[in-house]
Amino acid sequence: MTIEFTIDRRINGTQVRTGVLRTPHGDVSTPVFMPVGTFGSVRSVTPDELISAGVNILLGNAYHLYLRPGAKRIRDLGGLHAFMGWDGPILTDSGGYQVFSLASLAKVQEDGVSFRSHIDGRLHFLTPQSVIEVQQDLGSDIMMPLDHCLPYGADEGALRDALDRTNRWAEISARAAEGKKSEVFGIVQGGMNEGLRKESARFMSSLDLPGYAIGGLSVGEPKETTWAMLEAVVGELPVDRPRYLMGVGSPEDLVEAVSRGVDMFDCALPTRVARNGGLYTKTGRLNVNNARFKEYVGPAEEGCDCYFCITFSMAYLHHLFNCNELLGYRLATLHNLRYFMKLMSEVRDAINKGSFSDFKQEFMHTYVPVSEEARSQGSRNGRKGRSGGE
Amino acid sequence: MTIEFTIDRRINGTQVRTGVLRTPHGDVSTPVFMPVGTFGSVRSVTPDELISAGVNILLGNAYHLYLRPGAKRIRDLGGLHAFMGWDGPILTDSGGYQVFSLASLAKVQEDGVSFRSHIDGRLHFLTPQSVIEVQQDLGSDIMMPLDHCLPYGADEGALRDALDRTNRWAEISARAAEGKKSEVFGIVQGGMNEGLRKESARFMSSLDLPGYAIGGLSVGEPKETTWAMLEAVVGELPVDRPRYLMGVGSPEDLVEAVSRGVDMFDCALPTRVARNGGLYTKTGRLNVNNARFKEYVGPAEEGCDCYFCITFSMAYLHHLFNCNELLGYRLATLHNLRYFMKLMSEVRDAINKGSFSDFKQEFMHTYVPVSEEARSQGSRNGRKGRSGGE
Repeated sequence: MTIEFTIDRRINGTQVRTGVLRTPHGDVSTPVFMPVGTFGSVRSVTPDELISAGVNILLGNAYHLYLRPGAKRIRDLGGLHAFMGWDGPILTDSGGYQVFSLASLAKVQEDGVSFRSHIDGRLHFLTPQSVIEVQQDLGSDIMMPLDHCLPYGADEGALRDALDRTNRWAEISARAAEGKKSEVFGIVQGGMNEGLRKESARFMSSLDLPGYAIGGLSVGEPKETTWAMLEAVVGELPVDRPRYLMGVGSPEDLVEAVSRGVDMFDCALPTRVARNGGLYTKTGRLNVNNARFKEYVGPAEEGCDCYFCITFSMAYLHHLFNCNELLGYRLATLHNLRYFMKLMSEVRDAINKGSFSDFKQEFMHTYVPVSEEARSQGSRNGRKGRSGGE
Repeated sequence: MTIEFTIDRRINGTQVRTGVLRTPHGDVSTPVFMPVGTFGSVRSVTPDELISAGVNILLGNAYHLYLRPGAKRIRDLGGLHAFMGWDGPILTDSGGYQVFSLASLAKVQEDGVSFRSHIDGRLHFLTPQSVIEVQQDLGSDIMMPLDHCLPYGADEGALRDALDRTNRWAEISARAAEGKKSEVFGIVQGGMNEGLRKESARFMSSLDLPGYAIGGLSVGEPKETTWAMLEAVVGELPVDRPRYLMGVGSPEDLVEAVSRGVDMFDCALPTRVARNGGLYTKTGRLNVNNARFKEYVGPAEEGCDCYFCITFSMAYLHHLFNCNELLGYRLATLHNLRYFMKLMSEVRDAINKGSFSDFKQEFMHTYVPVSEEARSQGSRNGRKGRSGGE
């Protein structure tokens, strides 16, 4: 296996753990947050800056790269790592979510899905096998299988049907990935139905895959439902494989999900919120566009070691946003990436020291989440599950 | 004097020279190109990246910073250097050009000019004295006096009137700057009238200022006229003071102007052209949007040591531009800034070695300028003189 997961430390009586995910492009300490590099770049920043911020694994979107510039072209240019100048691990999403959320006229057939490109309307047909081939062409370290995604609120019949197809496609994907350089994770679906979720987790587990993703959560359902579904699923997944909660999330969601056993996350939130002027701090999110920052000489957060905070003032960033200066989006992005990386590092330290429960309590006490409303304003897709792309 | 200029090497029988411009924020080797940082940032790049590209002096726009965020605010925040995190020298343009080109309803009175902000339509009144005060608040190393700028094609009567006013304002500005930390240059005007140009240069010289700018050239006139005016002016300026050709220009213009004795330049061209996909090379300008770069694995130019060229391919940059990714604008900007800095470094080396004439011949032989038409497409204000702002 090219993907291996070892657990470093488990907190007794919980699913909480730290571990190391070994990939062909290096090791990753978990729990880990993966920034989203939709089109082969994490918007506005360079690979060097990602490393400086503490990033060591990225998410790429097979759907977007398949459409532009094309997976074969990226293969011919030496693969996605060389193309984007990123030497670390890359996990790619299959495109399942994007086909069903971004593309138009998605039509499911037993052997795949046809859809029209959201860019030029051209007709495409993807199968579980071709989606693996796309990700092989990209040279992903970890691939996701094509899955049948339904919108929030789908009825049980539709969920059942989509789940069965997702299961069949997962088997086909696993076979298609056999002997390949990179490996495929399973994706647990099942909507907000606990029975289907458990069944899905059991089925995926039976495929003996190197890791398991949980899709279709944080798509608009109440938070209690999210956590109930997550708990139902985690209990059914093999303890020795990494668990990846797709498209999540906000700082408080990361801490909540880690406390329920999640090892991996991706979300467009830190980068997208940054471009709208939102800056994460220990006590919550600031908006640099707020008039109170016009003359504020301090950093976004005292003690923050990001390039923005050690070099400039909030007054400067306020001014850059006021003038729509590109540098502003970039500085805010660097800050938020650093915030997410530090948060995950603190989470890992707390688990390793056996003090995660105290950490979580302290974090939840100090960090004031933005309202659901403000949150979705700051992030168009913030409430959707898997990232439709940055 | 806080601004001092020493000549290192002169080419016999010409006005060509290298020198050092001493400023409160460090020494600058001339001839030098100053990137434009309109709103307190060179669009999309950080001070660190400017230094890596070889930049050591920036141009700021007093007009833009006076309107947003306000010169008093920048003063209260520690001055422009601290505000934008740039420790090197800053020359600020007075705003004269912007008032007459960007603002609406500019009305000249003897003691100053009233205008409405191009942002919110608010009424402002600037005088030669207040423009010096604005630049003092910014903490500029080199200030420009308020001048009366006319559009290309103005008749002799209007030119005469504006020139007399510019001269009176220059005297007032010089007095207002006396005893201040930074110093003011003179600006030679006079349209395309050789007699007025010479008279203006003689008048400005009589004020014994630490440097002289030449304004109102490269505003749409034929190239021969630009160079004839420049030659007329340079002959009248004191040989021991730096000569600064405002708003110029393209690589071939820089070389032509150096050969006529210019020491300093500023222009939005390298950064603005970059954001439109134009990349400078020894043989001319490429456009990364061109289909031929879709699969091109090479850099913009073999041997280029800019961050883009050593890290990525033109195929990647083509893709980033195709997806409107912010990183694309940034990488192209880094390349162009590095190109301009290397060009000026080669110019200085050639002068110091006494081989500038050969250098110029070789450069003009190798470098194919873009057509005037393409040039102005790549750069909205590329044919205007002083930068209206980036």
